[in-house]
Amino acid sequence: MEQRTSRPAAAGQLVYGKNPVAELLRSGAGVDTVLLSEGMAPEAAGYYMALAKQAGAVVKRVHPAKLRALCGAESHQGVAAFAAAVEYVPLKELLGAARAAHEDPFLVLADGIEDPHNLGAVIRSALLCGAHGLVIPKRGGAAVTPAAVKSSAGAAARLPVARVANIGEAVRRLKAENIFVYCADPNGAPLEKTNLTGPVALVLGGEGAGVSPLVRKLCDGSLRLDMSARAAGVDSFNVSVAAGIILYEMMRQRGARG
Amino acid sequence: MEQRTSRPAAAGQLVYGKNPVAELLRSGAGVDTVLLSEGMAPEAAGYYMALAKQAGAVVKRVHPAKLRALCGAESHQGVAAFAAAVEYVPLKELLGAARAAHEDPFLVLADGIEDPHNLGAVIRSALLCGAHGLVIPKRGGAAVTPAAVKSSAGAAARLPVARVANIGEAVRRLKAENIFVYCADPNGAPLEKTNLTGPVALVLGGEGAGVSPLVRKLCDGSLRLDMSARAAGVDSFNVSVAAGIILYEMMRQRGARG
Repeated sequence: MEQRTSRPAAAGQLVYGKNPVAELLRSGAGVDTVLLSEGMAPEAAGYYMALAKQAGAVVKRVHPAKLRALCGAESHQGVAAFAAAVEYVPLKELLGAARAAHEDPFLVLADGIEDPHNLGAVIRSALLCGAHGLVIPKRGGAAVTPAAVKSSAGAAARLPVARVANIGEAVRRLKAENIFVYCADPNGAPLEKTNLTGPVALVLGGEGAGVSPLVRKLCDGSLRLDMSARAAGVDSFNVSVAAGIILYEMMRQRGARG
Repeated sequence: MEQRTSRPAAAGQLVYGKNPVAELLRSGAGVDTVLLSEGMAPEAAGYYMALAKQAGAVVKRVHPAKLRALCGAESHQGVAAFAAAVEYVPLKELLGAARAAHEDPFLVLADGIEDPHNLGAVIRSALLCGAHGLVIPKRGGAAVTPAAVKSSAGAAARLPVARVANIGEAVRRLKAENIFVYCADPNGAPLEKTNLTGPVALVLGGEGAGVSPLVRKLCDGSLRLDMSARAAGVDSFNVSVAAGIILYEMMRQRGARG
């Protein structure tokens, strides 16, 4: 019988110290981010970077004072890690979920949504509108943090989420699976005049810059929302509201209301 | 020439001390809330309550420790006030705005939205979808605080907001003006099968309990959003997302895209 030397880290929990972090990274449990002190010796840092890479976790170098502030002690030994609040799955599992439901794939990709409350609201809308899963980037956007889980109102435990190194690469892979990939873009085609049935994915941009130009170029099409002329100057909906409007229209057209 | 004895309070600013608060209340500038220490003598408290009533501000009795924590000093003399972040207008001005635009009135009422970020996102969507104004309650919901203004992305400075003592009373007044008042309700009629043209108002409920039963009874009709069967258990959209979906459908039907 296997012996446990320590309790497993709870979802979203901060773990610190050399052995606890190494254990967490080797455990197979999801890890969001590993924080390494800028003062850590190169060979020790290299060891944790290799472990983090295997575990699919993001590494950030931080000032020792930041680690001290987070861990509230000197006992962090230069390293800390955030356990993932949800278990991420590989991209292909999202397609498997659609296949298992005998439905055309319907996926959402977040290209750099920074506010975890917005990400949580997108997860909630995606589940309610019948999407099979969400794709988020490892860097340049919020992870499914405890705050995102809370604002998803339970949906984060139900909607599979894949975390990929590169959103552009994920778009390429989905296109290779014959999925038509749309992005939300102010210069796109009017939402309700677009056929959104069949295998589709929707790429949402971040709060500030929207979908990145590189990713936009890779997409098969783009969609825009109408706006009242009176609103000139306020030129976009909140990203989670825009996502909700588009996903609701997708559900309507797909007739997947159940 | 009139002499100024002090600078006017900035939007959202906290003002404290007997004279500054009395001045602010008499100035005609909007005041959200007046905080009175529980330890204040009855006649002094009565004086501020009368001033607050005239200014349309809400009065809250608070523990002296709360005032001390807010004002960071003993010099609050038992009274503090938050200047309004926007200037509220009377309900009839919202109707005037529609008349001036030669359009059927299109209003939004928030029946107890508590999170200022959600309220800000609703203001943003209301403006973008061509609504003429928003109605919020004096008590039991977020005011247009600086946080709501920020999350409205500029819309709070553009959309007229009325703050009323009673949402039910506001619904009655709108009905008397031949406005058809809908509420968002899980047991309502399907959104896209409902005719939303003509003079309309939409009542949104709070994050927890939705539209209050009393207000729901007063409404002419109710609307519900569809949801995927897969989402069972997660039974509603975020309130600002739901608002966005309904308001966008209203704009679409009204053809007020400009």
